[in-house]
Amino acid sequence: MNTLLLVQLVAILVTARLLSLLLLRFGQPAVIGEMIAGIALGPLLLGQLAPGLQAQLFPPQSLPALAGISQIGLVLFMFIVGAELRLPTGLRAQMSASFRIGGLAMLLPFLLGLAMAPWLHPTLAPRGVTLLPFALFIATAIAITAFPIMARILKEKGLAGSAVGVLSLTSAAFADVVAWILLALVVALISADGGWGGFARTALGLVLLSVVAFALVRPAIAALLRRHADDGRPDGTVLTLLLIATFAFAALTNWLQLHEVFGAFLFGACLPRDDTLLDTLVERLEHVSVLVLMPVFFALAGLNTSPEAFAGLGLSAMALILLLAIVGKVLGGAAGARLSGMGWRDAFAIGTLMNTRGLMELIVLKVGLDVGVIGKELFTMLALMAVITTLMTSPLLDLLARGARAGAAGEGKVHSV
Amino acid sequence: MNTLLLVQLVAILVTARLLSLLLLRFGQPAVIGEMIAGIALGPLLLGQLAPGLQAQLFPPQSLPALAGISQIGLVLFMFIVGAELRLPTGLRAQMSASFRIGGLAMLLPFLLGLAMAPWLHPTLAPRGVTLLPFALFIATAIAITAFPIMARILKEKGLAGSAVGVLSLTSAAFADVVAWILLALVVALISADGGWGGFARTALGLVLLSVVAFALVRPAIAALLRRHADDGRPDGTVLTLLLIATFAFAALTNWLQLHEVFGAFLFGACLPRDDTLLDTLVERLEHVSVLVLMPVFFALAGLNTSPEAFAGLGLSAMALILLLAIVGKVLGGAAGARLSGMGWRDAFAIGTLMNTRGLMELIVLKVGLDVGVIGKELFTMLALMAVITTLMTSPLLDLLARGARAGAAGEGKVHSV
Repeated sequence: MNTLLLVQLVAILVTARLLSLLLLRFGQPAVIGEMIAGIALGPLLLGQLAPGLQAQLFPPQSLPALAGISQIGLVLFMFIVGAELRLPTGLRAQMSASFRIGGLAMLLPFLLGLAMAPWLHPTLAPRGVTLLPFALFIATAIAITAFPIMARILKEKGLAGSAVGVLSLTSAAFADVVAWILLALVVALISADGGWGGFARTALGLVLLSVVAFALVRPAIAALLRRHADDGRPDGTVLTLLLIATFAFAALTNWLQLHEVFGAFLFGACLPRDDTLLDTLVERLEHVSVLVLMPVFFALAGLNTSPEAFAGLGLSAMALILLLAIVGKVLGGAAGARLSGMGWRDAFAIGTLMNTRGLMELIVLKVGLDVGVIGKELFTMLALMAVITTLMTSPLLDLLARGARAGAAGEGKVHSV
Repeated sequence: MNTLLLVQLVAILVTARLLSLLLLRFGQPAVIGEMIAGIALGPLLLGQLAPGLQAQLFPPQSLPALAGISQIGLVLFMFIVGAELRLPTGLRAQMSASFRIGGLAMLLPFLLGLAMAPWLHPTLAPRGVTLLPFALFIATAIAITAFPIMARILKEKGLAGSAVGVLSLTSAAFADVVAWILLALVVALISADGGWGGFARTALGLVLLSVVAFALVRPAIAALLRRHADDGRPDGTVLTLLLIATFAFAALTNWLQLHEVFGAFLFGACLPRDDTLLDTLVERLEHVSVLVLMPVFFALAGLNTSPEAFAGLGLSAMALILLLAIVGKVLGGAAGARLSGMGWRDAFAIGTLMNTRGLMELIVLKVGLDVGVIGKELFTMLALMAVITTLMTSPLLDLLARGARAGAAGEGKVHSV
């Protein structure tokens, strides 16, 4: 009878739904409302308006239960995202375009982050943290693309299957794997056990796991489905097996020092592309995951912010971070798309999508906070940067789409936004 | 990146599925396998076979996350059970039969428990616990019927809509509400704040909440559905509202000192009996709740058992508890059903179903353990009694059904098992 957990869920879900409905009027997908609801329930808003209530609603000993729920939700959600991924024809061309877009959309903000770090280091680095790991962490944090939120935005806008959508998702997946490997390197540098050995293990392990997933797991599941599926719909045993494998893949990527979302996504992506299977999976798993469990994740992230971030030079540091983050991502992504032969409009749509940082950023920031390479102030700034860059995505996409429709007669074809 | 939680989930789900598949060969519904898997992962089996592994797999600091997940699962499951409840025609007759069956199936084991308690008290009561609260607790624990497990057994056997099924469910619901009110009284007696005042508040509050649910909430939801439902299927907003209300009802019953499962069930039961709505709800919520979240509940319960229960007089105490629990429930339930005009076979089927104690018992026992009215030894005995009485249900039902089929030609009609 943990009443507090139930009250927390009601508070989180009500706040998320109200903000989603409000933001819907401004054309923002529901996920942004949930994200802002999470921040609003933390120290930045509720903690300012009603500090007693905030402390009563989220006492420290209540957080492990919320963390468990949020983790399950995130893993299930990423599994669904992977399961829903449909690569269009021309996979090879797609892959090299993804590498180009993901690479440039990571490299440019990464370099800008490295350049900015020396200025932030004296005031914002925790004591004892030297410039190198601090700079690498800032650069990595700015170079992150929020793969799951991007997936939700694409889904809510009905773009998940479009050329721009698929290319952005695969580019983001590629960029994020690199960014996560970098993050593992930063963590290894700071904790001083692992180092290059740990880095190599992570990269090699991921390659091996992907090979196993597509070469062994995929045909095994196809065979299982032929035996067990009732009208092509998986029965309870198959569904349980898929869920067990999802958690096992998530645990394996954790063990490789990568975040569990990659394992869940990889397993979802390696499933046979069978529409009946995938539609049934989504219908059966998505609602609890998206409606109940994910808002808990956002609330948990919001609890780690601090209003002290805006003291002193805080606001100007925040402005600089925001500027470089946006410029680096949009231009980097757009440049990669242009180099892959896309038109300017689609290229900027992809750049805009790569600028979505959302919850993946929040996970990276939490890792940084935990290992002590950043403090709560920088965590707050980077978290707000994540919210703002995510908020920008939808209006910018709509703007590009309006431009595209206006120019459609002249250009002949417009796949994308 | 809480890898342990993912590993725990894999261990729990794999064990539950393997045991379910094994027990399926003996005609047992899957839920029993999950229940035994929970006990098997605790100190009684895994703790004996591989104590180091068991301690590593479930360290104390990992339990809050599991508890949160299990709580959400239980609440969602009970909401679904309530939503699926279909009362057949002749509700008034049904109600009085439910009161009679539930009442007798509670009264008889309760009295037997009271009679047995003085014998158990000297050896098994924790220090400082007087006979009165101890006896009341034992009596209440023996009088519990596991409403959710019964629902799952009925569901897996396709009996959820049958006369015997519906009557057993409503009787169990009535018996359990009384038992939970008794439990609240025992807790109040021990904690010595509340007492009769707390008891009255619980009873009155529950009546009020039920009136509000059926008189106000039900028409409000019907109106909401008429506006928002897309082809009679609730959209995201409606589904979120239903989930928020589920958690809010659960929190309210907690606040009334009742277990949250009653609030979740009450809200599910008060929904308009609209098949499209209810089928969609079930399809969207059931799989995650039943396949992922509920096995966690069982594992958590199993972690509270202790192998020391079988030292000394332990085995004979366990045998006596088991005997009185079975005799009291089966005879009490059957007597109530006979008094309501049912045939012997259906009456015994209902008595057998009332003897299912499963997870509700485990919740009661956990409350008793937490307030200190029983120790781990008695917890273990009563938990095993719960497993054994639950295991008995399915074979006994099948036996009665075979008897019924054999005698069907003579009797003319057989609704039930």
